[in-house]
Amino acid sequence: MAFNYPNGHSFNQKAFQKPIVSYGASQSNRGMSLESDINEANKYYLAMGQAVIHKKPTPIQIVNVSYPARAAAKITEAYFRQASTTDYNGIYKGYYIDFDAKETTHKRSFPLNNIHEHQVKHLKAIAKQNGLAFMIIRFTVLQETYVVWAKLIFEYWDNRETGRKSIPYETIAKFGELVEQHYNPTTPYLQAVDKLLIECKKEGDNLI
Amino acid sequence: MAFNYPNGHSFNQKAFQKPIVSYGASQSNRGMSLESDINEANKYYLAMGQAVIHKKPTPIQIVNVSYPARAAAKITEAYFRQASTTDYNGIYKGYYIDFDAKETTHKRSFPLNNIHEHQVKHLKAIAKQNGLAFMIIRFTVLQETYVVWAKLIFEYWDNRETGRKSIPYETIAKFGELVEQHYNPTTPYLQAVDKLLIECKKEGDNLI
Repeated sequence: MAFNYPNGHSFNQKAFQKPIVSYGASQSNRGMSLESDINEANKYYLAMGQAVIHKKPTPIQIVNVSYPARAAAKITEAYFRQASTTDYNGIYKGYYIDFDAKETTHKRSFPLNNIHEHQVKHLKAIAKQNGLAFMIIRFTVLQETYVVWAKLIFEYWDNRETGRKSIPYETIAKFGELVEQHYNPTTPYLQAVDKLLIECKKEGDNLI
Repeated sequence: MAFNYPNGHSFNQKAFQKPIVSYGASQSNRGMSLESDINEANKYYLAMGQAVIHKKPTPIQIVNVSYPARAAAKITEAYFRQASTTDYNGIYKGYYIDFDAKETTHKRSFPLNNIHEHQVKHLKAIAKQNGLAFMIIRFTVLQETYVVWAKLIFEYWDNRETGRKSIPYETIAKFGELVEQHYNPTTPYLQAVDKLLIECKKEGDNLI
């Protein structure tokens, strides 16, 4: 049965009913739960005026668009493009912040093959500009989420050919900051960022 | 004639040959020239390690994806979504910067209907967090491009119901900063941002 809006425009049922296809992380669906937690936190921070952080749209190369009469433009052919940045950026307390979110089912370490070259390259460029560059890493089995300064990731990444192919859980738990689970938002990761910032200042560490 | 990669995977000719459909600004093609100038400038700044600024991908709602054997995933049904932010953001000299780029063929003023509610709302949130929020406005006929602090835009926007529906050219030329055209990049807009920052500091103005 076809529906129409009162103004005669046709109601595009498909566009509303079908679920959005999961995309983003190359690790497919694994990232969706952490991703939705972070989106929820970002909505909260925005509503409370505490930060403005958004997930970037997935880059798409559009090849064909059809313009049906009285309906929204419909993209009929498009392809996923390689991103050149991380997924999230924004501003918090005057700081530029930039990060990616990663989930792993491993319990003893975070495998570096969860990370892409372009993400590291981008985070290095951000760190060079004195932005806050980090990753949010969730050990799904342990149900623990950490904010980890990008500098730690770089150390392991740059030595991955000769050294370990993963970052030990203990290292992340020691140098990262655990995100304490909450009600609303469930994953208030900026609290962990705050703690890391305080630690850095205490130690005069140039982590950022 | 069909091409194949040496590994037997088919070469997706269409994905490479067809031009990317123009999208982004609701003013359709008008914005493409300024947009490509800014993208060129951003590439230059990134390569020189001076700033990390990217255009955000256009937000798309994906409804259907087909996965042809031995070829890239093909999006067969998708729709444009309303953006909730501006098109550009990044980091420069430790500042979070955030802006949109607008072109007008008008000569005496910049019509406010080039601007969308969500863009103003977003820039206000950024300004509140002490980010550098601005617009790059090009008068195409005059061949003049200005960096204009968002605060000036807000003044006109907030009074648009009762007051003017456009910002006079003279106001933009006086309070904005002209981007001097160059060779590479052609539109070095961060030089204009620098000048505005110096002016603000001189006058103790809290424009940012």
